[in-house]
Amino acid sequence: MNRRATLALIAGAPLMNAVPAAAHSPADDRAAVQAWCDRCVAAWAAGDGPAMYAGDAEALEWINIVGMHWRGKAEVVTAHERYLTTMFRGVPMSLREIETLRPIGRDGVVAVVRWAVGQFTTPTGHVIPPSEDRMTLVFERDADALRLLHGANVQIDPVAAASDPIS
Amino acid sequence: MNRRATLALIAGAPLMNAVPAAAHSPADDRAAVQAWCDRCVAAWAAGDGPAMYAGDAEALEWINIVGMHWRGKAEVVTAHERYLTTMFRGVPMSLREIETLRPIGRDGVVAVVRWAVGQFTTPTGHVIPPSEDRMTLVFERDADALRLLHGANVQIDPVAAASDPIS
Repeated sequence: MNRRATLALIAGAPLMNAVPAAAHSPADDRAAVQAWCDRCVAAWAAGDGPAMYAGDAEALEWINIVGMHWRGKAEVVTAHERYLTTMFRGVPMSLREIETLRPIGRDGVVAVVRWAVGQFTTPTGHVIPPSEDRMTLVFERDADALRLLHGANVQIDPVAAASDPIS
Repeated sequence: MNRRATLALIAGAPLMNAVPAAAHSPADDRAAVQAWCDRCVAAWAAGDGPAMYAGDAEALEWINIVGMHWRGKAEVVTAHERYLTTMFRGVPMSLREIETLRPIGRDGVVAVVRWAVGQFTTPTGHVIPPSEDRMTLVFERDADALRLLHGANVQIDPVAAASDPIS
């Protein structure tokens, strides 16, 4: 280990953009997903689209709560940058819970995370009251990291939830 | 190989529920996803929840268009059985397109598929006009098959689509 790496470890400095995931234990994977979510929250607050997906897969795809489908990291970043600096500017957003996390063989992880989002107004003028979203996150394991490969986000309908046949 | 297996091979009889995917070529994976979708359509029309997920992973999770989250195949099957025999009985449903399909390392595949669904009425009496859904399907590669591990479904908002920052 060179001197700079040693100093970084001593300082605890997070120098990498990709989420560390050298080992494959469930606890390590959960920590990596938590780190991704923490980065997402910080990027949202800063209105920073590129930071939100720094280190993630170039093949990244995203499906948002109204079913738009963005293909490739460039599209995902551009679309988020647009919304983070307009519709979502100043709107609070926070992680409620990493609900589930499962390995996909050796090479991937799929997680379900729930978010709280404050009131916002859509480009067509529709006011969306404070809500919760349930998000699917698919990560590809790449050597020392989990890189996001796919995200899909569903707005939770609290009226429908009352008639969930399972709960 | 016993006589029954030999006869089945000669007859070309598809005896397995799991979707065959012995090779890992993109064309094979696409055929396996198409086969999953075909099975889904048939099970929907028959109102058959267990058939819809036959051969899929026991750890299967599902997030539906209103954000309900079912964990484990038993919950996923029970919930679909309920809806297929009530809210969705007689409602037409068909595959529009397998939009994208990407490997997750060697061990998984993530696909985005788009469906057309006819008008239906929710348990709370809300009439949903004919619509399209965009669905994320995460498959785990298990020896000779792709087994569904996770599904998440988003209803496409055609009004919002007009202001998609990418298209």
